[in-house]
Amino acid sequence: MSKKILWINPVTTELYNQTFKEEYEKVKQSDTIVDVVSLKPAPGPIHLEYNCYEGMIMPELLETIYKAEKDGYDAAIIGCFYDPLIRAAREISKKMVITAPAEASLNLASTLGESISIIVGRDKWIPEMKENVHKYGCINKLASFKSVNLGVTDFQKDHAETEKRIKQAAREAMEIDGADVIILGCTMEFGFFNVIQRELEIPIIDASLAPFKYAEYLVEMKQKFNWSHSKRIGYQSPPDKEIHEWGLFKQKASL
Amino acid sequence: MSKKILWINPVTTELYNQTFKEEYEKVKQSDTIVDVVSLKPAPGPIHLEYNCYEGMIMPELLETIYKAEKDGYDAAIIGCFYDPLIRAAREISKKMVITAPAEASLNLASTLGESISIIVGRDKWIPEMKENVHKYGCINKLASFKSVNLGVTDFQKDHAETEKRIKQAAREAMEIDGADVIILGCTMEFGFFNVIQRELEIPIIDASLAPFKYAEYLVEMKQKFNWSHSKRIGYQSPPDKEIHEWGLFKQKASL
Amino acid sequence: MSKKILWINPVTTELYNQTFKEEYEKVKQSDTIVDVVSLKPAPGPIHLEYNCYEGMIMPELLETIYKAEKDGYDAAIIGCFYDPLIRAAREISKKMVITAPAEASLNLASTLGESISIIVGRDKWIPEMKENVHKYGCINKLASFKSVNLGVTDFQKDHAETEKRIKQAAREAMEIDGADVIILGCTMEFGFFNVIQRELEIPIIDASLAPFKYAEYLVEMKQKFNWSHSKRIGYQSPPDKEIHEWGLFKQKASL
Amino acid sequence: MSKKILWINPVTTELYNQTFKEEYEKVKQSDTIVDVVSLKPAPGPIHLEYNCYEGMIMPELLETIYKAEKDGYDAAIIGCFYDPLIRAAREISKKMVITAPAEASLNLASTLGESISIIVGRDKWIPEMKENVHKYGCINKLASFKSVNLGVTDFQKDHAETEKRIKQAAREAMEIDGADVIILGCTMEFGFFNVIQRELEIPIIDASLAPFKYAEYLVEMKQKFNWSHSKRIGYQSPPDKEIHEWGLFKQKASL
Amino acid sequence: MSKKILWINPVTTELYNQTFKEEYEKVKQSDTIVDVVSLKPAPGPIHLEYNCYEGMIMPELLETIYKAEKDGYDAAIIGCFYDPLIRAAREISKKMVITAPAEASLNLASTLGESISIIVGRDKWIPEMKENVHKYGCINKLASFKSVNLGVTDFQKDHAETEKRIKQAAREAMEIDGADVIILGCTMEFGFFNVIQRELEIPIIDASLAPFKYAEYLVEMKQKFNWSHSKRIGYQSPPDKEIHEWGLFKQKASL
Amino acid sequence: MSKKILWINPVTTELYNQTFKEEYEKVKQSDTIVDVVSLKPAPGPIHLEYNCYEGMIMPELLETIYKAEKDGYDAAIIGCFYDPLIRAAREISKKMVITAPAEASLNLASTLGESISIIVGRDKWIPEMKENVHKYGCINKLASFKSVNLGVTDFQKDHAETEKRIKQAAREAMEIDGADVIILGCTMEFGFFNVIQRELEIPIIDASLAPFKYAEYLVEMKQKFNWSHSKRIGYQSPPDKEIHEWGLFKQKASL
Repeated sequence: MSKKILWINPVTTELYNQTFKEEYEKVKQSDTIVDVVSLKPAPGPIHLEYNCYEGMIMPELLETIYKAEKDGYDAAIIGCFYDPLIRAAREISKKMVITAPAEASLNLASTLGESISIIVGRDKWIPEMKENVHKYGCINKLASFKSVNLGVTDFQKDHAETEKRIKQAAREAMEIDGADVIILGCTMEFGFFNVIQRELEIPIIDASLAPFKYAEYLVEMKQKFNWSHSKRIGYQSPPDKEIHEWGLFKQKASL
Repeated sequence: MSKKILWINPVTTELYNQTFKEEYEKVKQSDTIVDVVSLKPAPGPIHLEYNCYEGMIMPELLETIYKAEKDGYDAAIIGCFYDPLIRAAREISKKMVITAPAEASLNLASTLGESISIIVGRDKWIPEMKENVHKYGCINKLASFKSVNLGVTDFQKDHAETEKRIKQAAREAMEIDGADVIILGCTMEFGFFNVIQRELEIPIIDASLAPFKYAEYLVEMKQKFNWSHSKRIGYQSPPDKEIHEWGLFKQKASL
Repeated sequence: MSKKILWINPVTTELYNQTFKEEYEKVKQSDTIVDVVSLKPAPGPIHLEYNCYEGMIMPELLETIYKAEKDGYDAAIIGCFYDPLIRAAREISKKMVITAPAEASLNLASTLGESISIIVGRDKWIPEMKENVHKYGCINKLASFKSVNLGVTDFQKDHAETEKRIKQAAREAMEIDGADVIILGCTMEFGFFNVIQRELEIPIIDASLAPFKYAEYLVEMKQKFNWSHSKRIGYQSPPDKEIHEWGLFKQKASL
Repeated sequence: MSKKILWINPVTTELYNQTFKEEYEKVKQSDTIVDVVSLKPAPGPIHLEYNCYEGMIMPELLETIYKAEKDGYDAAIIGCFYDPLIRAAREISKKMVITAPAEASLNLASTLGESISIIVGRDKWIPEMKENVHKYGCINKLASFKSVNLGVTDFQKDHAETEKRIKQAAREAMEIDGADVIILGCTMEFGFFNVIQRELEIPIIDASLAPFKYAEYLVEMKQKFNWSHSKRIGYQSPPDKEIHEWGLFKQKASL
Repeated sequence: MSKKILWINPVTTELYNQTFKEEYEKVKQSDTIVDVVSLKPAPGPIHLEYNCYEGMIMPELLETIYKAEKDGYDAAIIGCFYDPLIRAAREISKKMVITAPAEASLNLASTLGESISIIVGRDKWIPEMKENVHKYGCINKLASFKSVNLGVTDFQKDHAETEKRIKQAAREAMEIDGADVIILGCTMEFGFFNVIQRELEIPIIDASLAPFKYAEYLVEMKQKFNWSHSKRIGYQSPPDKEIHEWGLFKQKASL
Repeated sequence: MSKKILWINPVTTELYNQTFKEEYEKVKQSDTIVDVVSLKPAPGPIHLEYNCYEGMIMPELLETIYKAEKDGYDAAIIGCFYDPLIRAAREISKKMVITAPAEASLNLASTLGESISIIVGRDKWIPEMKENVHKYGCINKLASFKSVNLGVTDFQKDHAETEKRIKQAAREAMEIDGADVIILGCTMEFGFFNVIQRELEIPIIDASLAPFKYAEYLVEMKQKFNWSHSKRIGYQSPPDKEIHEWGLFKQKASL
């Protein structure tokens, strides 16, 4: 039984879609089919550092998810460490599983270690992310947030500089804050976990790889045991009648 | 110094705008100017019981807020008890104060009593609202959520029935769950607090009146002491450059 | 409808009563009548840094509150950041609203920011105040307490020195502890918020102004909606019979 | 080394002093000397169900404690389950240890069981007591408060009725709320623990006996290891200079 | 790359080893090799309802784990919902990943729903399991524990009766306690999840299947990204020198 | 009524048994009989820094406790600051009370101060101990863990060095972390509390003395009021039938 997974970069640039797809092809299970899309129309937010940018791309994000279910995907991943609109995505998905970077990374980190630090780009991100650390039950295991003073779009500009900053922040998290596991708290921090992990010798979790693999795991749970998001209370789906009358979610053509 | 306040019904119906405005005119401070708007375009969500409906109206909501600041409002209120996108609204408001029903009602309730129950329409609403009860620091004071099994659009259909159900739920909250203060957890539960309060003899907080008055209070804090939302971390504003390049928030004509 | 508000300096010196009254006259709403009293008899505590001093002035404080209600005040404010005996004050007030600096300042701070630091005079004060931060639901938002090593009666001695110390503490709270809003945790720290706020550009909340304005807000809630302290459980009033038999509260002459 | 312990009934009736003393004589260690006093002057509160009654007796209570240290007592117990003014008492005691019923009973209960219910007289008492359950770190172990609808002065009126009500409440706590240990949350509930304990076969902790024995234990810790209340931060003593200038604590003649 | 997984029934009966192995063969990934063992010597505990039984089998459990790593297993699962000695197992495993039913089931449940109930055999189990619900960060999502009044060895005796009781408890958890996801809190509750899930239409998580699949997932994380238990602090391995000098873990022959 | 108390050094060395016994003889109550034993067989763990060492000595520990009850002890103390297997020990003790260093020290510390630091040997110990700080309700009072970088067996090697390190750590805990009470978090840190306490002038709690005295206190509670561990839920004893059939606990000869 194949697993058809859609990674959504919830921004209006396709710049990294190909790179992400290639990375996922390397690490996917043999029966997984993976696609990577971003949102339209450009110009629009190419990062979501501000909650108001999240707000602006939400209809497009939801339409992408709604369309993905129709197109037969088994899972969709909302590719931003704020996990934007994960509840809404689960509401409109009757068959797909939905996950996102913070949920997946924190669940994994709390199995691998007991004191978690999250490396972010800017202090600005911390309060919203901290709400998620609470929500996902990891606040007692949070050692620290560490900011490297880079924007989302800076991480991939000067790889040596980015690596140096992340490594330094991770080392301080480990040595001063007592972290025994590190999460790179932005999907754009991809490409660095491995070299830092080898040097620091503690798990460094990549926020683009972790949710992709967690999605595969969740799809397998769905396929084998029919364990999927509960539709009883908080993830209940809206009535089709309202969706149709209000013309919601359906404007998108095929992905 | 006048206070110009905008109540936003974040739905695509104007059905209750006039009623709300009239209510606010009755209870406002003398120097307050109040307007009530809803969102466009119809057809679209006329309630936000589902998080995915919240998602769909978010750009319009943000544009309304962005426009409100330009139009000289001192405060904007996001008129839904989920307090949708309150962080985003505070980011894009450099001068306006922003509040919403759950924040205002919970702050007031925790000054008036010590054990709070929230009367909701459906169980579906509880998990998202509970996240806010956590966020606003009231989880230790939460006695219960009570559901009356009515949708947002049902509350004003049969006033006798609605009153009966809310009163019954409030009484159980008081007598069984030990609540000493009640919040009516939907702005559409307006019109009932007074009669129930007189009967049960505990504060029954109306979720459309409380945030309106809290907004007046916050505007006064801003005008007299320049105490307003901190722009240092979580409510930092996005750079104008990005807003302009991506064409955000500005599509709306005058309110 | 006028609002008659009594600020109680719960100490046996009248030294700052006039200053406070003048400050409140400047910032009050037009329909507010404000009085400031302190306690008798002198000599007695002129500050409440120690919980045992709080204990010693409590009967006089309660009598003042009891008398205030008879004299027609709409609100009484217990003017010490420990919020001493706020429950007792609410018990004996059947019509007045009661508030105090920590409650008012923390409620406001948690609307304005997400990470709160409190500037105190001495470390001694912290444990008792921390109990209140818990009680008022703000412990998850507490960035730090910072002590400036000054007693209550020192704050107004050398204004330049006090300002320097508070500013330095506030700056460290902001830059090191990550605070985005500051509370000056003693009513005697009055007179400094404005200059520090302009320099640090985050809200600096004054603990004598915040509760005064919160009292006006609460009185308006009472007058317009009859929303006042719940008398059902924890703020229940004692039976008049016992008050009379035991001769409680009534020894005081007119204020 | 003898242990001189003072139990303070913080009320203005001597009605139960002799009974308490006789009970303590039966269960004390051989080297313990125990005295029981109440407060003056009568008429005054003969129970402290209301926080405002607590407020009224506080100076007398503090003076009694201050005098007790001068009279050479090794421990003083504030005999009310609200643990009124325990911080103040520790401030003014430089040599004595101070404890109170809630602290002692909760510490013991959390060693004996894992799920604690507290039997109170009226719902009114619960919010103030719950603040103490938080403070003493037992909130996660709290199964329930159960009210028997009796005032403090009712418990000893009709022993059969009181026993019946407490037993019924304790049984419900055990069978419905899952308690495995019960605290009788008022010192006036004395005389009942034993018979109910034998019947229910779980520990029923008496709030007058538990703190007396805990005081003996604490005195021994002081005498043998000099482990006593830390004077570094929250229990710091006020300066003698202020005490003398303001004439505090010293009005009391010998006990 | 194959995944060699060992399920350890930490009891001294082999009664269900074959059944478990057959179940795992049905649901495993194609490249997984699974073995099921129990402990020696019999007679000994055939269930671990009591913590003292857990204590008695711990050396044998650790030896089994120590041996498993030498035998080339990639993961070991401690097959009891108390997750006994999971820290110790992670200490002595330098290459293997370790998981257990409560960790795996709670992580999954908190992704699938927001309000979790756990169906246990007896009330006796609850306090120890509740400590784990805390540890795994799910206490805020815990709706209830429900006991069906069956011992571990009773679950498989009368399938119709067991199914009836579990279904009834799950239904009450859902309808009364508000659970939207259920965990069957004992590995011996196997065989029932599917039929109950179909009827109640919320996820019913089987505590023997969930950790097996979570182990496969964790092994994949280890194999592909070298993300495994952090050895820096709490899961640090003991020095080989001590293991050898004290003759620890090595008594076991091949599995 | 005499109190027969057994201190168990849960390690396979008798090296400090005599020293401990002598210390307890000095500080015991006159009617207390104290014995100190360690475990067999040697060679085996002589410290329990690793949870896997705890696991290996558990049967021997339980057998020692089981035997102790038969031998008429009134209390047994599990002499390791991890409080290993305290639940199991309470299960198998029908008459004895059981305590351990972390429980006893934390209960005492939270009565003596409000901000607790724990001096440990290595960072490795912290996560497991922190779970206990949570369990015992002291997490809100925890100022810090401080590690002195010494193993359990190092503390008594070079007394001057150990004293220097502990004193330095305690001083930092007090001055930087704000602790007002210190716990020496290992029974092998004995012999240092007094000199450090005199110098720092805050309570320094010794983890071998505190539980011994707490055991005396608990025995007295048992003897005078029959207040002992509740057998209703979590500390329920296993059925004798299973103990006998499985040959548990009884292999030990007399102590």
